[in-house]
Amino acid sequence: MRHKTNHYIAVALRSMFSKNQVKRIKALARKKVRQESGQFVVEGHKLVTELLQSELRVLEVWALPEWIENASLPLAHQPEVKVFPVKPNEMERLTLLNSPSPVLAILAIPEPQKADINPRGLTLVLDRINDPGNLGTLIRIADWFGVQQLVCSSDTVDAYNPKVVQATMGSLARVYLIYTDLVSWLHTSKAQFPEIPICGAVMNGENLYQSELKAPAVVVMGSESHGIDSNLLPLLSHQLTIPVYGGAESLNVAAAAAIMCAEFRRRR
Amino acid sequence: MRHKTNHYIAVALRSMFSKNQVKRIKALARKKVRQESGQFVVEGHKLVTELLQSELRVLEVWALPEWIENASLPLAHQPEVKVFPVKPNEMERLTLLNSPSPVLAILAIPEPQKADINPRGLTLVLDRINDPGNLGTLIRIADWFGVQQLVCSSDTVDAYNPKVVQATMGSLARVYLIYTDLVSWLHTSKAQFPEIPICGAVMNGENLYQSELKAPAVVVMGSESHGIDSNLLPLLSHQLTIPVYGGAESLNVAAAAAIMCAEFRRRR
Repeated sequence: MRHKTNHYIAVALRSMFSKNQVKRIKALARKKVRQESGQFVVEGHKLVTELLQSELRVLEVWALPEWIENASLPLAHQPEVKVFPVKPNEMERLTLLNSPSPVLAILAIPEPQKADINPRGLTLVLDRINDPGNLGTLIRIADWFGVQQLVCSSDTVDAYNPKVVQATMGSLARVYLIYTDLVSWLHTSKAQFPEIPICGAVMNGENLYQSELKAPAVVVMGSESHGIDSNLLPLLSHQLTIPVYGGAESLNVAAAAAIMCAEFRRRR
Repeated sequence: MRHKTNHYIAVALRSMFSKNQVKRIKALARKKVRQESGQFVVEGHKLVTELLQSELRVLEVWALPEWIENASLPLAHQPEVKVFPVKPNEMERLTLLNSPSPVLAILAIPEPQKADINPRGLTLVLDRINDPGNLGTLIRIADWFGVQQLVCSSDTVDAYNPKVVQATMGSLARVYLIYTDLVSWLHTSKAQFPEIPICGAVMNGENLYQSELKAPAVVVMGSESHGIDSNLLPLLSHQLTIPVYGGAESLNVAAAAAIMCAEFRRRR
């Protein structure tokens, strides 16, 4: 164990904390830079430790020496990772968050795969979700309900945005995400799986609790401000509504998605 | 109508935008100042318009002249309100948000009332909710499901914090909130309504879908990181769990509360 730790530190010492490194890492706050480099940033002890042990590929770890000393087990899961010890004031310069944590990692954005409906479970489709916190919460909800496939409209906020990544709390490693044109995706999916219902959450649809739908199914959620895009509505086989009992005009999109997923799961 | 508008502007011109006014309004970002003054700030066209027409008392409106011109109807609901026209650069100095809107209002925090269990509906109890966005979303969820009573632990984030207020989207006017010591509140409530179940959302409890509980009920939600305080657990009559189907360790507290409220409502 001690031998391993020393090896990491030895690798690290060959490289140096520098202005250019700060610039390169900070630039990953920008979507364009993430897309060009295929990299994104994760921060925090719990999150980095979890992701080191996931399927995601960790490229670099920048951390306080004490953190590195205690992380030989999780680090051993990623033999290719480069580990760089940094001082607390250097972490302050690297962080993309408001306050630095003992560790920051750079990960590879996974290759996009072909996105099909899950023919045995739930598939979640997100139309124009702009708020990073909401998307992060939606990824965790998907992970909680065993939804492995999240299909996002091209204008949904980038899942590798630091604010989204931090809000996912590790679920990003277990949920598979694609960004695509939803009209053509829904067209193709309907042709491929005509028997699977495509259900959208809308304001004045069928009462969710009076429908008898269950998984497998596709659940489509739109943004709170705009709802589901009007071009997508004709592609839905069912328009469902969570009944309102009070005065609120809308339900937070993540809360509504949680209710929809819970209901489809409960009925299996 | 035009007459009314002119009246507001006339009132306004008697007062002036000044450094001291900026200081006074900005200070309402602090909980202590809100508590001492009994005032809080609301920003944005939709939110201010809605709250002007609510039960809440609006004390001051600071807005661009165009906004005031078009707001005579909602302003007429609050005959006591003082209206101050400001220039766009002045709004930039007043705002407590990242970017200014055309209108900012100062409202009176409603007087705390005696907080009892709702004997016919749902009562939501929140233990140590720290995140302002989560509390705002929880207030909207309460409003959606007709929960009129939200009982918060004294260490829950202040509902009149600007970030909470903005996230409630007007539901703050329809949900009644109190901050109190939950142990003694639950003790008193149990004695008063021994037949009403007190249900907490926990990690390893009874499957929510296998319980047959329905409203009237009290639903207790703890923070995501700490769960329900161990001092409260013995006061619960039922410990309920939303079944997990995937790998996530926790569900966002607002998403979990939405599922609990939806389930209790569905069964009525």
